[in-house]
Amino acid sequence: MTSPPPDHVPAAHGSHRELRADARRNRERVLRTAQQLFATEGLGVPLDEIARRAGVGPGTVHRHFPTKEALYLAVTIDQLKQLVAGAEALAGNDDPGALFELLARMMTNGAENAAVKSALMAAEFDLRTAAPDVAADLTRHVSDLLDRAHSAGAVRQDVSVDEVMALVAGAFAAIRHAGAETSRERSAHIARLILDGLRPPPQ
Amino acid sequence: MTSPPPDHVPAAHGSHRELRADARRNRERVLRTAQQLFATEGLGVPLDEIARRAGVGPGTVHRHFPTKEALYLAVTIDQLKQLVAGAEALAGNDDPGALFELLARMMTNGAENAAVKSALMAAEFDLRTAAPDVAADLTRHVSDLLDRAHSAGAVRQDVSVDEVMALVAGAFAAIRHAGAETSRERSAHIARLILDGLRPPPQ
Repeated sequence: MTSPPPDHVPAAHGSHRELRADARRNRERVLRTAQQLFATEGLGVPLDEIARRAGVGPGTVHRHFPTKEALYLAVTIDQLKQLVAGAEALAGNDDPGALFELLARMMTNGAENAAVKSALMAAEFDLRTAAPDVAADLTRHVSDLLDRAHSAGAVRQDVSVDEVMALVAGAFAAIRHAGAETSRERSAHIARLILDGLRPPPQ
Repeated sequence: MTSPPPDHVPAAHGSHRELRADARRNRERVLRTAQQLFATEGLGVPLDEIARRAGVGPGTVHRHFPTKEALYLAVTIDQLKQLVAGAEALAGNDDPGALFELLARMMTNGAENAAVKSALMAAEFDLRTAAPDVAADLTRHVSDLLDRAHSAGAVRQDVSVDEVMALVAGAFAAIRHAGAETSRERSAHIARLILDGLRPPPQ
Protein backbone atom coordinates (compact mmCIF):
# COMPACT_ATOMS: atom_id res chain seq x y z
CA MET A 1 0.00 0.00 0.00
CA THR A 2 1.49 3.31 -1.09
CA SER A 3 1.06 6.44 0.90
CA PRO A 4 -1.16 9.05 -0.71
CA PRO A 5 0.65 11.27 -3.23
CA PRO A 6 1.87 14.57 -1.81
CA ASP A 7 -0.59 16.41 -3.99
CA HIS A 8 -3.62 14.55 -2.64
CA VAL A 9 -5.12 17.63 -1.11
CA PRO A 10 -5.08 19.68 -4.33
CA ALA A 11 -6.33 16.58 -6.22
CA ALA A 12 -9.23 16.07 -3.84
CA HIS A 13 -9.90 19.78 -4.05
CA GLY A 14 -9.93 19.46 -7.88
CA SER A 15 -12.49 16.65 -7.82
CA HIS A 16 -14.61 18.61 -5.37
CA ARG A 17 -14.46 21.44 -7.82
CA GLU A 18 -15.62 19.14 -10.61
CA LEU A 19 -18.47 17.91 -8.45
CA ARG A 20 -19.37 21.47 -7.70
CA ALA A 21 -19.27 22.43 -11.39
CA ASP A 22 -21.54 19.46 -12.10
CA ALA A 23 -23.93 20.47 -9.32
CA ARG A 24 -23.92 24.03 -10.66
CA ARG A 25 -24.84 22.83 -14.15
CA ASN A 26 -27.65 20.70 -12.74
CA ARG A 27 -28.92 23.61 -10.69
CA GLU A 28 -28.88 25.82 -13.77
CA ARG A 29 -30.71 23.18 -15.83
CA VAL A 30 -33.38 22.92 -13.15
CA LEU A 31 -33.79 26.71 -13.06
CA ARG A 32 -34.16 27.11 -16.82
CA THR A 33 -36.60 24.19 -17.00
CA ALA A 34 -38.61 25.54 -14.06
CA GLN A 35 -38.72 29.02 -15.62
CA GLN A 36 -40.10 27.61 -18.88
CA LEU A 37 -42.64 25.34 -17.19
CA PHE A 38 -43.87 28.09 -14.85
CA ALA A 39 -44.30 30.46 -17.81
CA THR A 40 -46.10 27.98 -20.06
CA GLU A 41 -47.94 25.71 -17.62
CA GLY A 42 -48.35 27.83 -14.50
CA LEU A 43 -47.03 27.52 -10.98
CA GLY A 44 -48.81 24.25 -10.24
CA VAL A 45 -46.10 22.13 -11.89
CA PRO A 46 -44.81 19.67 -9.22
CA LEU A 47 -41.12 19.73 -8.29
CA ASP A 48 -40.81 16.08 -9.40
CA GLU A 49 -42.08 16.96 -12.89
CA ILE A 50 -39.54 19.78 -13.11
CA ALA A 51 -36.80 17.29 -12.12
CA ARG A 52 -37.97 14.78 -14.76
CA ARG A 53 -38.01 17.41 -17.54
CA ALA A 54 -34.62 18.77 -16.46
CA GLY A 55 -33.21 15.22 -16.56
CA VAL A 56 -32.10 15.17 -12.92
CA GLY A 57 -33.21 13.09 -9.95
CA PRO A 58 -36.01 14.44 -7.76
CA GLY A 59 -33.55 14.45 -4.85
CA THR A 60 -31.40 16.97 -6.70
CA VAL A 61 -34.28 19.41 -7.01
CA HIS A 62 -35.40 18.97 -3.41
CA ARG A 63 -31.82 19.37 -2.15
CA HIS A 64 -31.29 22.64 -4.04
CA PHE A 65 -34.82 23.97 -3.50
CA PRO A 66 -36.46 22.64 -0.34
CA THR A 67 -39.61 24.69 -1.01
CA LYS A 68 -41.45 26.00 -4.07
CA GLU A 69 -40.73 29.53 -2.79
CA ALA A 70 -36.98 28.84 -2.78
CA LEU A 71 -37.31 27.79 -6.42
CA TYR A 72 -39.37 30.88 -7.33
CA LEU A 73 -36.72 33.11 -5.80
CA ALA A 74 -33.87 31.27 -7.55
CA VAL A 75 -35.68 31.44 -10.92
CA THR A 76 -36.23 35.16 -10.48
CA ILE A 77 -32.62 35.83 -9.56
CA ASP A 78 -31.42 33.65 -12.46
CA GLN A 79 -33.57 35.68 -14.86
CA LEU A 80 -32.16 38.91 -13.49
CA LYS A 81 -28.63 37.56 -13.92
CA GLN A 82 -29.39 36.73 -17.55
CA LEU A 83 -30.67 40.27 -18.06
CA VAL A 84 -27.50 41.66 -16.46
CA ALA A 85 -25.35 39.48 -18.75
CA GLY A 86 -27.34 40.79 -21.73
CA ALA A 87 -26.90 44.35 -20.48
CA GLU A 88 -23.13 43.85 -20.25
CA ALA A 89 -23.06 42.70 -23.87
CA LEU A 90 -25.18 45.70 -24.93
CA ALA A 91 -22.89 48.06 -23.02
CA GLY A 92 -19.97 46.73 -25.04
CA ASN A 93 -21.09 48.23 -28.34
CA ASP A 94 -21.73 51.90 -29.02
CA ASP A 95 -25.35 51.69 -30.19
CA PRO A 96 -27.27 54.59 -28.56
CA GLY A 97 -30.44 52.47 -28.98
CA ALA A 98 -29.07 49.81 -26.61
CA LEU A 99 -31.19 51.31 -23.82
CA PHE A 100 -34.38 50.49 -25.74
CA GLU A 101 -33.22 46.94 -26.45
CA LEU A 102 -32.46 46.29 -22.77
CA LEU A 103 -35.73 47.81 -21.57
CA ALA A 104 -37.75 45.80 -24.09
CA ARG A 105 -36.12 42.60 -22.80
CA MET A 106 -36.75 43.58 -19.17
CA MET A 107 -40.40 44.31 -19.92
CA THR A 108 -41.29 41.19 -21.90
CA ASN A 109 -39.13 38.82 -19.88
CA GLY A 110 -40.44 40.27 -16.64
CA ALA A 111 -44.02 39.91 -17.80
CA GLU A 112 -43.48 36.31 -18.92
CA ASN A 113 -42.26 35.48 -15.42
CA ALA A 114 -44.94 37.52 -13.74
CA ALA A 115 -46.64 34.54 -12.12
CA VAL A 116 -43.45 33.49 -10.39
CA LYS A 117 -42.77 36.98 -9.15
CA SER A 118 -46.38 37.51 -8.06
CA ALA A 119 -46.21 34.33 -6.03
CA LEU A 120 -42.99 35.54 -4.46
CA MET A 121 -43.92 39.09 -3.77
CA ALA A 122 -47.71 39.18 -3.62
CA ALA A 123 -48.98 40.96 -6.69
CA GLU A 124 -46.29 43.54 -7.36
CA PHE A 125 -42.79 42.64 -8.37
CA ASP A 126 -40.15 44.99 -7.12
CA LEU A 127 -36.67 44.34 -8.45
CA ARG A 128 -35.28 46.24 -5.51
CA THR A 129 -36.44 43.78 -2.85
CA ALA A 130 -36.24 40.42 -4.62
CA ALA A 131 -32.49 40.43 -5.13
CA PRO A 132 -30.93 43.73 -4.12
CA ASP A 133 -27.43 43.09 -5.52
CA VAL A 134 -28.30 41.79 -8.96
CA ALA A 135 -31.20 44.27 -9.16
CA ALA A 136 -28.74 47.07 -8.37
CA ASP A 137 -26.45 45.80 -11.16
CA LEU A 138 -29.33 45.91 -13.60
CA THR A 139 -30.37 49.40 -12.50
CA ARG A 140 -26.76 50.57 -12.90
CA HIS A 141 -26.67 49.24 -16.47
CA VAL A 142 -29.97 50.95 -17.25
CA SER A 143 -28.57 54.16 -15.80
CA ASP A 144 -25.36 53.91 -17.88
CA LEU A 145 -27.26 53.17 -21.10
CA LEU A 146 -29.68 56.01 -20.33
CA ASP A 147 -26.73 58.42 -19.92
CA ARG A 148 -25.34 57.26 -23.26
CA ALA A 149 -28.74 57.62 -24.96
CA HIS A 150 -29.16 61.09 -23.43
CA SER A 151 -25.75 62.14 -24.80
CA ALA A 152 -26.65 60.80 -28.24
CA GLY A 153 -30.08 62.45 -28.20
CA ALA A 154 -31.67 59.02 -28.61
CA VAL A 155 -34.02 59.43 -25.63
CA ARG A 156 -36.04 62.39 -24.37
CA GLN A 157 -34.05 64.57 -21.98
CA ASP A 158 -36.76 64.90 -19.31
CA VAL A 159 -36.75 61.23 -18.24
CA SER A 160 -34.85 60.01 -15.17
CA VAL A 161 -33.57 56.53 -14.39
CA ASP A 162 -36.16 56.23 -11.59
CA GLU A 163 -38.90 56.95 -14.10
CA VAL A 164 -37.46 54.42 -16.54
CA MET A 165 -37.44 51.71 -13.84
CA ALA A 166 -40.97 52.72 -12.86
CA LEU A 167 -42.05 52.30 -16.49
CA VAL A 168 -40.62 48.78 -16.49
CA ALA A 169 -42.82 47.97 -13.48
CA GLY A 170 -45.67 49.71 -15.31
CA ALA A 171 -45.11 47.54 -18.37
CA PHE A 172 -45.38 44.37 -16.25
CA ALA A 173 -48.71 45.60 -14.88
CA ALA A 174 -49.99 46.66 -18.31
CA ILE A 175 -49.08 43.31 -19.87
CA ARG A 176 -50.73 41.42 -17.01
CA HIS A 177 -53.84 43.64 -17.25
CA ALA A 178 -54.13 42.82 -20.97
CA GLY A 179 -53.61 39.10 -20.23
CA ALA A 180 -50.68 39.20 -22.67
CA GLU A 181 -48.04 37.48 -20.46
CA THR A 182 -47.88 34.33 -22.57
CA SER A 183 -47.90 36.04 -25.97
CA ARG A 184 -44.47 37.36 -26.94
CA GLU A 185 -46.03 39.37 -29.77
CA ARG A 186 -48.70 41.06 -27.64
CA SER A 187 -46.39 41.76 -24.71
CA ALA A 188 -43.74 43.16 -27.06
CA HIS A 189 -46.32 45.51 -28.58
CA ILE A 190 -47.33 46.89 -25.18
CA ALA A 191 -43.64 47.31 -24.31
CA ARG A 192 -43.16 49.19 -27.60
CA LEU A 193 -46.06 51.55 -26.86
CA ILE A 194 -44.44 52.47 -23.56
CA LEU A 195 -40.91 52.70 -24.96
CA ASP A 196 -42.02 54.95 -27.82
CA GLY A 197 -43.05 57.48 -25.18
CA LEU A 198 -39.35 57.78 -24.31
CA ARG A 199 -38.27 58.76 -27.82
CA PRO A 200 -37.10 62.34 -28.21
CA PRO A 201 -39.87 64.62 -29.51
CA PRO A 202 -39.70 65.27 -33.27
CA GLN A 203 -37.73 68.44 -34.09
CA MET B 1 -108.71 70.35 14.35
CA THR B 2 -108.64 70.29 10.58
CA SER B 3 -108.30 67.10 8.65
CA PRO B 4 -105.05 66.73 6.79
CA PRO B 5 -105.05 68.45 3.40
CA PRO B 6 -105.90 66.16 0.49
CA ASP B 7 -102.38 66.55 -0.77
CA HIS B 8 -100.76 65.27 2.44
CA VAL B 9 -99.33 62.22 0.76
CA PRO B 10 -97.51 64.15 -1.96
CA ALA B 11 -96.40 66.64 0.72
CA ALA B 12 -94.97 63.88 2.92
CA HIS B 13 -93.42 62.37 -0.16
CA GLY B 14 -91.87 65.76 -0.90
CA SER B 15 -90.35 66.01 2.54
CA HIS B 16 -89.04 62.46 2.27
CA ARG B 17 -87.45 63.46 -0.97
CA GLU B 18 -85.85 66.46 0.74
CA LEU B 19 -84.57 64.20 3.49
CA ARG B 20 -83.18 61.86 0.89
CA ALA B 21 -81.53 64.73 -1.00
CA ASP B 22 -80.03 65.88 2.29
CA ALA B 23 -78.76 62.35 3.07
CA ARG B 24 -77.33 62.14 -0.43
CA ARG B 25 -75.46 65.43 0.01
CA ASN B 26 -74.08 64.23 3.36
CA ARG B 27 -73.02 60.94 1.84
CA GLU B 28 -71.26 62.81 -0.96
CA ARG B 29 -69.56 65.15 1.47
CA VAL B 30 -68.31 62.16 3.48
CA LEU B 31 -66.99 60.49 0.32
CA ARG B 32 -65.08 63.53 -0.95
CA THR B 33 -63.63 64.17 2.51
CA ALA B 34 -62.64 60.51 2.90
CA GLN B 35 -61.02 60.49 -0.55
CA GLN B 36 -58.92 63.53 0.33
CA LEU B 37 -57.93 62.27 3.76
CA PHE B 38 -57.03 58.80 2.46
CA ALA B 39 -54.88 60.34 -0.29
CA THR B 40 -53.07 62.80 1.96
CA GLU B 41 -52.99 61.06 5.35
CA GLY B 42 -53.28 57.37 4.50
CA LEU B 43 -55.90 54.76 5.25
CA GLY B 44 -55.45 54.92 9.02
CA VAL B 45 -57.77 57.93 9.40
CA PRO B 46 -60.59 56.90 11.80
CA LEU B 47 -64.21 57.07 10.60
CA ASP B 48 -64.98 59.56 13.39
CA GLU B 49 -62.29 61.93 12.13
CA ILE B 50 -63.72 61.70 8.61
CA ALA B 51 -67.15 62.57 10.03
CA ARG B 52 -65.74 65.54 11.94
CA ARG B 53 -63.96 66.95 8.89
CA ALA B 54 -67.01 66.38 6.69
CA GLY B 55 -69.13 68.25 9.24
CA VAL B 56 -71.54 65.38 9.89
CA GLY B 57 -72.25 63.29 12.98
CA PRO B 58 -70.29 60.07 13.46
CA GLY B 59 -73.60 58.16 13.32
CA THR B 60 -74.12 59.38 9.75
CA VAL B 61 -70.81 57.91 8.62
CA HIS B 62 -71.34 54.61 10.46
CA ARG B 63 -74.90 54.32 9.06
CA HIS B 64 -73.78 54.85 5.45
CA PHE B 65 -70.53 52.88 5.78
CA PRO B 66 -70.64 50.20 8.46
CA THR B 67 -67.07 49.13 7.66
CA LYS B 68 -63.92 50.80 6.37
CA GLU B 69 -64.11 48.47 3.32
CA ALA B 70 -67.62 49.75 2.49
CA LEU B 71 -66.18 53.28 2.55
CA TYR B 72 -63.20 52.29 0.35
CA LEU B 73 -65.55 50.79 -2.22
CA ALA B 74 -67.86 53.82 -2.15
CA VAL B 75 -64.91 56.22 -2.54
CA THR B 76 -63.62 54.22 -5.51
CA ILE B 77 -67.01 54.13 -7.23
CA ASP B 78 -67.51 57.85 -6.55
CA GLN B 79 -64.13 58.57 -8.18
CA LEU B 80 -65.08 56.48 -11.21
CA LYS B 81 -68.38 58.34 -11.48
CA GLN B 82 -66.53 61.66 -11.45
CA LEU B 83 -64.28 60.38 -14.24
CA VAL B 84 -67.34 59.26 -16.22
CA ALA B 85 -68.94 62.71 -15.75
CA GLY B 86 -65.70 64.29 -16.97
CA ALA B 87 -65.63 61.92 -19.94
CA GLU B 88 -69.19 62.92 -20.86
CA ALA B 89 -68.16 66.57 -20.87
CA LEU B 90 -65.10 65.79 -23.00
CA ALA B 91 -67.23 63.77 -25.43
CA GLY B 92 -69.42 66.85 -25.91
CA ASN B 93 -66.78 68.87 -27.72
CA ASP B 94 -64.97 67.87 -30.89
CA ASP B 95 -61.38 68.03 -29.65
CA PRO B 96 -59.52 64.97 -31.04
CA GLY B 97 -57.11 65.32 -28.09
CA ALA B 98 -59.93 64.63 -25.60
CA LEU B 99 -58.70 61.01 -25.35
CA PHE B 100 -55.37 62.18 -23.93
CA GLU B 101 -57.06 64.50 -21.44
CA LEU B 102 -59.32 61.71 -20.16
CA LEU B 103 -56.48 59.19 -19.91
CA ALA B 104 -54.26 61.65 -18.06
CA ARG B 105 -57.04 62.18 -15.51
CA MET B 106 -57.62 58.45 -15.15
CA MET B 107 -53.91 57.84 -14.58
CA THR B 108 -53.20 60.57 -12.04
CA ASN B 109 -56.52 60.27 -10.22
CA GLY B 110 -56.21 56.49 -10.12
CA ALA B 111 -52.69 56.71 -8.75
CA GLU B 112 -53.69 59.24 -6.08
CA ASN B 113 -56.31 56.80 -4.83
CA ALA B 114 -54.04 53.80 -5.15
CA ALA B 115 -53.94 53.09 -1.42
CA VAL B 116 -57.72 52.84 -1.23
CA LYS B 117 -57.88 50.54 -4.22
CA SER B 118 -54.97 48.42 -3.00
CA ALA B 119 -56.72 47.93 0.30
CA LEU B 120 -59.86 46.94 -1.58
CA MET B 121 -58.36 44.73 -4.20
CA ALA B 122 -55.04 43.52 -2.80
CA ALA B 123 -52.25 45.23 -4.70
CA GLU B 124 -53.66 45.57 -8.20
CA PHE B 125 -56.62 47.71 -9.05
CA ASP B 126 -58.81 46.38 -11.81
CA LEU B 127 -61.54 48.74 -12.91
CA ARG B 128 -63.43 45.78 -14.33
CA THR B 129 -64.07 44.07 -11.00
CA ALA B 130 -64.45 46.98 -8.57
CA ALA B 131 -67.57 48.44 -10.14
CA PRO B 132 -68.49 46.67 -13.35
CA ASP B 133 -71.24 49.10 -14.52
CA VAL B 134 -69.47 52.38 -13.98
CA ALA B 135 -66.17 50.84 -15.13
CA ALA B 136 -67.93 49.70 -18.32
CA ASP B 137 -69.22 53.26 -18.84
CA LEU B 138 -65.70 54.59 -18.50
CA THR B 139 -64.28 51.99 -20.89
CA ARG B 140 -67.01 52.85 -23.41
CA HIS B 141 -66.07 56.53 -23.22
CA VAL B 142 -62.40 55.69 -23.70
CA SER B 143 -63.36 53.53 -26.69
CA ASP B 144 -65.46 56.32 -28.26
CA LEU B 145 -62.75 58.93 -27.75
CA LEU B 146 -60.15 56.51 -29.13
CA ASP B 147 -62.29 56.01 -32.27
CA ARG B 148 -62.54 59.77 -32.68
CA ALA B 149 -58.79 60.23 -32.17
CA HIS B 150 -58.09 57.42 -34.66
CA SER B 151 -60.30 59.12 -37.26
CA ALA B 152 -58.56 62.44 -36.67
CA GLY B 153 -55.09 60.86 -36.81
CA ALA B 154 -54.43 62.14 -33.29
CA VAL B 155 -53.38 58.72 -31.94
CA ARG B 156 -51.28 55.92 -33.45
CA GLN B 157 -53.38 53.51 -35.47
CA ASP B 158 -51.94 50.31 -34.00
CA VAL B 159 -53.29 50.77 -30.47
CA SER B 160 -56.48 49.04 -29.28
CA VAL B 161 -58.83 50.04 -26.48
CA ASP B 162 -57.69 46.99 -24.46
CA GLU B 163 -54.10 48.20 -24.73
CA VAL B 164 -55.12 51.72 -23.72
CA MET B 165 -56.89 50.38 -20.61
CA ALA B 166 -53.87 48.19 -19.87
CA LEU B 167 -51.64 51.27 -20.08
CA VAL B 168 -53.84 53.01 -17.52
CA ALA B 169 -53.25 50.09 -15.15
CA GLY B 170 -49.57 50.27 -16.09
CA ALA B 171 -49.48 53.96 -15.23
CA PHE B 172 -50.89 53.25 -11.74
CA ALA B 173 -48.14 50.68 -11.19
CA ALA B 174 -45.42 52.95 -12.57
CA ILE B 175 -46.52 55.87 -10.39
CA ARG B 176 -46.65 53.63 -7.30
CA HIS B 177 -43.22 52.17 -8.14
CA ALA B 178 -41.78 55.69 -8.33
CA GLY B 179 -43.50 56.62 -5.04
CA ALA B 180 -45.13 59.50 -6.91
CA GLU B 181 -48.76 58.94 -5.80
CA THR B 182 -48.93 62.05 -3.68
CA SER B 183 -47.15 64.39 -6.08
CA ARG B 184 -49.47 65.65 -8.82
CA GLU B 185 -46.48 66.95 -10.76
CA ARG B 186 -44.47 63.71 -10.66
CA SER B 187 -47.45 61.45 -11.37
CA ALA B 188 -48.53 63.69 -14.26
CA HIS B 189 -45.04 63.44 -15.74
CA ILE B 190 -45.07 59.64 -15.67
CA ALA B 191 -48.56 59.69 -17.21
CA ARG B 192 -47.23 61.99 -19.94
CA LEU B 193 -44.31 59.66 -20.71
CA ILE B 194 -46.79 56.81 -21.25
CA LEU B 195 -49.31 58.89 -23.18
CA ASP B 196 -46.64 60.25 -25.52
CA GLY B 197 -46.07 56.67 -26.66
CA LEU B 198 -49.61 56.77 -28.09
CA ARG B 199 -48.96 59.78 -30.32
CA PRO B 200 -48.89 59.06 -34.04
CA PRO B 201 -45.34 58.58 -35.35
CA PRO B 202 -43.87 61.69 -37.00
CA GLN B 203 -44.45 61.75 -40.78
